Amino acid sequence: MRKRLNLAPMLKPKSVAIIGASRVPGKVGHVILQNYIQGGYSGRLYLVNRNADEILGIKSYKGILEIRKPIDLAVIAIPAEAVPAVLEECGKAKVRTAVVVSGGFAEVGNTALQDELPKIAERYGMAVLGPNCLGVMDPRSRVDTLFLPTFKLSRPQIGGVSFVAQSGAVGSTILDLISAEGFGLSKFISYGNAAHVDEVDILEYLMDDPETKVIVMYLEGVKRGPEFIDIARRITMKKPVIVLKAGRTSAGIAAAHSHTAALAGSYEAHEALFRQFGFTIANDIKELLYYAKIFYSEPEAKGNRVCIITNGGGTGVLTADAVSSSRLLKLGAFSRATEAALKKTMPSIVNIRNPLDLAGDADQKRYRDALSSIALDTGIDMIIAIALFQTPGGDSTLASELISLKESINKPLIVISIGSRFTEMHKIMMESAGLPVYDSPSAAALSLSALIGYSEYRKRPRP
Amino acid sequence: MRKRLNLAPMLKPKSVAIIGASRVPGKVGHVILQNYIQGGYSGRLYLVNRNADEILGIKSYKGILEIRKPIDLAVIAIPAEAVPAVLEECGKAKVRTAVVVSGGFAEVGNTALQDELPKIAERYGMAVLGPNCLGVMDPRSRVDTLFLPTFKLSRPQIGGVSFVAQSGAVGSTILDLISAEGFGLSKFISYGNAAHVDEVDILEYLMDDPETKVIVMYLEGVKRGPEFIDIARRITMKKPVIVLKAGRTSAGIAAAHSHTAALAGSYEAHEALFRQFGFTIANDIKELLYYAKIFYSEPEAKGNRVCIITNGGGTGVLTADAVSSSRLLKLGAFSRATEAALKKTMPSIVNIRNPLDLAGDADQKRYRDALSSIALDTGIDMIIAIALFQTPGGDSTLASELISLKESINKPLIVISIGSRFTEMHKIMMESAGLPVYDSPSAAALSLSALIGYSEYRKRPRP
Repeated sequence: MRKRLNLAPMLKPKSVAIIGASRVPGKVGHVILQNYIQGGYSGRLYLVNRNADEILGIKSYKGILEIRKPIDLAVIAIPAEAVPAVLEECGKAKVRTAVVVSGGFAEVGNTALQDELPKIAERYGMAVLGPNCLGVMDPRSRVDTLFLPTFKLSRPQIGGVSFVAQSGAVGSTILDLISAEGFGLSKFISYGNAAHVDEVDILEYLMDDPETKVIVMYLEGVKRGPEFIDIARRITMKKPVIVLKAGRTSAGIAAAHSHTAALAGSYEAHEALFRQFGFTIANDIKELLYYAKIFYSEPEAKGNRVCIITNGGGTGVLTADAVSSSRLLKLGAFSRATEAALKKTMPSIVNIRNPLDLAGDADQKRYRDALSSIALDTGIDMIIAIALFQTPGGDSTLASELISLKESINKPLIVISIGSRFTEMHKIMMESAGLPVYDSPSAAALSLSALIGYSEYRKRPRP
Repeated sequence: MRKRLNLAPMLKPKSVAIIGASRVPGKVGHVILQNYIQGGYSGRLYLVNRNADEILGIKSYKGILEIRKPIDLAVIAIPAEAVPAVLEECGKAKVRTAVVVSGGFAEVGNTALQDELPKIAERYGMAVLGPNCLGVMDPRSRVDTLFLPTFKLSRPQIGGVSFVAQSGAVGSTILDLISAEGFGLSKFISYGNAAHVDEVDILEYLMDDPETKVIVMYLEGVKRGPEFIDIARRITMKKPVIVLKAGRTSAGIAAAHSHTAALAGSYEAHEALFRQFGFTIANDIKELLYYAKIFYSEPEAKGNRVCIITNGGGTGVLTADAVSSSRLLKLGAFSRATEAALKKTMPSIVNIRNPLDLAGDADQKRYRDALSSIALDTGIDMIIAIALFQTPGGDSTLASELISLKESINKPLIVISIGSRFTEMHKIMMESAGLPVYDSPSAAALSLSALIGYSEYRKRPRP
């Protein structure tokens, strides 16, 4: 088994060297430099460019060996053919980690060139990420090796979800989507062709990272089977891992091979392995975000009995359908005490049943009365509160009420709100306060299923 | 069989009377009046309120009979108990159609009260919509009986999709979502308890409506089975109908009954009927929008062989998976001529295969070269162009190129773009020009499946 690689200097670097830093706006080496400057990276920043003495007011070195200072992370953005020699220099300069963003290796058939990288890395005890990758981002340490400008790819706020992606494209789109979510980012790691650092090293690091509460992965293939199984077995006992595996069809497998030269293998074998070790399987990019959201903010589910309350009757019907047709969920029944309490507080137009249709004119008081009773009902394990902001009672007092109720209810409680501008505003308001908001009944039901699935896995007796 | 009701005066009224118009901001009768004023309705507007002589500068009548002018549409927003008497007065005043927005009828057990409405309607030859509904909206005629203010529920622009919803809540959220879509709205009809006008009348109207290109329905139950089957058989030969049917589980059926007193019946029976007559079945609110979008802008599919081109390898892999795992779609193979053309125009890093990964640095020229060749390939029936705007080449020149290519390619061509602000901007740009944009591989594959499914239904030989 290969020695575990230390990724800490890559994600929390005290000093960064950008090799291939460029004066030309739009060039990869310029965008990366700009992102460091604009991102407010506060460690030591060194630039290397054979043809420049200074870039954007920062001194530039001809080679990494000239710097003669400890360097935690070298970001390498130069043509593929030049990478091995430069990496060798990094090793001599005692650089601790490197990110090779350059493409042009195994993904275009240059396997021999790529095979040199891990050899150099091992020789000098460096951890090398890539090649053909976006690299890393950590909003706490402000490391950001992405060569995509922030106006195109919005950077997420600080948070607790770490996102691991083999593919740069999938990585960048999801990172951009995370920027609109309340849960925020712990680490982003795009590892491309995985010549050296691979998913096993990354999971080992994230498992023990206190800033990471939830791990989200986009995977094309697994390189080291036994080691992956070993970490998979341990990691889900510590934190939830959500995985989207590409290559579920023969067409996808062939495409994946041509993409990151990944040996995608049989999807069924991977899926069986993921299930065995309690990974949450996503079938689409959107599901990655749905599940990240619920795992980030919700407590473990004690059982699978769901209650739905709503200010829109039809949306309640659709949600009852979505919950009932989910294999892992069912609608709960109210206890007599809950029924009696609701009969007291609800107006006569409200039928006391689950889903509880509070009617289109429901205001924050009606939500509070209903949720306070339901929260005490031991026959209800999880709550979906549908809050449609198109309605007369749908405004920021309702959003505030749901936020404050959330704090006192120690069962999973999620919201469904569907709509455009006015709804989006309230979604942001609720999610910033840790109340997850879904944009469809099926998204909500899928997410509660994921939560109960993981809760049950953790409760299962082990040898 | 009941006589066909004429809905034209309801949707294209030359004169509207608001019965229950109110001086009190926030009241239903005030919001409706405000929406007429702000919406720029240019027909004759009359107000009826027993206790006011004038509201917002417009003369108010004590009763509808005082007006003594032809009235095409009466919007009734008064307490349930008072509705029958007022509807009777409308009949006497020769009002041609009425929308009863008031709730408090069969959905809360007042079936006797509700049963009076169709009797009065038939006696006077009026078409009466509702009760317990949002009513109608037509951005061309500027009729808008919705009692929800525009800051909460954005109104869609003029377009070609008509949307029919039994439920006001589902109706209002989807209408709000449509406001963010490029295809725009022809008619919105929320018919609530369906005491008189029902889905059969509405479909009869929309089938012959030249402004309606696609029909989208949210349905809780069907009232007149044989008549529904008769219109269903005819309508899909003229235009596509997309349906989301609530009550697919026993919990959903029970909830639907309590909501609009609908007899939801067996979902399987409904689904079999929908399939038999070529309806496109949506399983979620989002699918309604996905399918509306593709039917609105795309030509009929000649076959099911899909080509994927992409500037993001991983997204290409996921899309290949989504296409290949769809029962109705498959990946096409390039002809020798296409291969030769692509070999000439593509840089060496591009593998000539489907999905065609143009690489992360692809610009508009590479898209043009690739799409121009693929458009001529008779072995390719439909094209998915993945355009990720986080990439170096992802900007408005790329969006413009795709728009201009769209005009010359007479095969279905759809785009996948995933991301936040910068991507959203380009999505709006492309959709305004009639190029549908999807936010995930699965959404794109589902939509192409819907398109080919309907194309095949239309081609099927008929007795």
